[in-house]
Amino acid sequence: MIRATTISPTKRTTLNRLPKRATYERDNIYQILDEGFVCHVGFIADGQPVVIPTAYGRAEDILYIHGSVASRMLRALADGVQVCVTVTLVDGLVLARSAFHHSMNYRSVVVFGTASVVKDAMEKAKALLTFSEHVIPGRWSEVREPNEDELRKTLVLRIPLTEASAKVRSGPPIDDEADYTLPVWAGELPLRLVTGAPISDPRLKEHIRAPAYIRNYQVQSRVITKPS
Amino acid sequence: MIRATTISPTKRTTLNRLPKRATYERDNIYQILDEGFVCHVGFIADGQPVVIPTAYGRAEDILYIHGSVASRMLRALADGVQVCVTVTLVDGLVLARSAFHHSMNYRSVVVFGTASVVKDAMEKAKALLTFSEHVIPGRWSEVREPNEDELRKTLVLRIPLTEASAKVRSGPPIDDEADYTLPVWAGELPLRLVTGAPISDPRLKEHIRAPAYIRNYQVQSRVITKPS
Repeated sequence: MIRATTISPTKRTTLNRLPKRATYERDNIYQILDEGFVCHVGFIADGQPVVIPTAYGRAEDILYIHGSVASRMLRALADGVQVCVTVTLVDGLVLARSAFHHSMNYRSVVVFGTASVVKDAMEKAKALLTFSEHVIPGRWSEVREPNEDELRKTLVLRIPLTEASAKVRSGPPIDDEADYTLPVWAGELPLRLVTGAPISDPRLKEHIRAPAYIRNYQVQSRVITKPS
Repeated sequence: MIRATTISPTKRTTLNRLPKRATYERDNIYQILDEGFVCHVGFIADGQPVVIPTAYGRAEDILYIHGSVASRMLRALADGVQVCVTVTLVDGLVLARSAFHHSMNYRSVVVFGTASVVKDAMEKAKALLTFSEHVIPGRWSEVREPNEDELRKTLVLRIPLTEASAKVRSGPPIDDEADYTLPVWAGELPLRLVTGAPISDPRLKEHIRAPAYIRNYQVQSRVITKPS
């Protein structure tokens, strides 16, 4: 398959401010999507914007989200309305010498498109596996797979990654030249999402120990296993 | 001032699924808003939903966001369009014995309303202070305050907290009764946003050390100083 390594900017994904922070390279966009696992889904309901957080998974050029067939958001999206999916990784606070030049280091991706329901049973099963391996690599093979009833209760949506852009800020603050002489500490305060010690379910059988993929889980360097 | 301790649910903020996860208590909502500092702002532009991450600050019953007067988002919001602001704190992964019952622990707030421009110079200055102290308590008094030119270039928006709800999930997985006998580890993997060691600006004067409010910064327990 021939696939463009960049995603052509559209009017919606073209940054008019600070365009040097923008990127349309698939690799950069996918790296951000693969590190994140919570997105904010924006859609219009009754003429009003609504933004709901939800987990997601990526496989190839598709983002998958899922939930209950009773979910108001999923039902709205299943109707094929326009959607904007945003993923934001906060990398740090940027402290300048002036209030004005304070900023944040971050990596974010904005995807525009239309969601569609994954109906085919095989694709649905594969999408759920993709989703699971995206968030917790290694988990799927250990747990009880969804049964037919559970699959029926689950709505899986596919959002194609055809219109997307990433925005990245990194590095130190940029102060006004005159302010560099001020006696104020300036720099970056890195921020990172980390895990605490696993908490066993109170109903866990005593002899079961948390598996390595949980004990060693790292948000930033999960090895995402793609289904074959 | 008499103020309701709960925010009356509206059609938009009423959860139809898992209603026991919802709360309309101001205290609960504000605690989440005060721990977070990045929100996802949803609005409609050219008939399409757009979701953009940005930092925010809260004072009393108002959420403040700000940015360049050239920002496409802020200009759109300044026109008084409907906005949905969502703040999400991810607290952990919830690992069940079945794929179906996997979940996430989180606290999120969804605010609906209309933004308006803070025009009054005094309120604008106070809003910027509020914003700064919300994200980095202690910073404002150390740095060069905005000058008139910078204030002119900054657009500050106010979003009243009159229509909002919080949604919270916490605790262990809830499995199907039959699955509790499965020999699979189940429980929670806590997630937390933490700081790394401060990185000094390469242009920092050698003798300046990172102040205590940076060295001891903790996302979860920042003491937010409200302007008087």
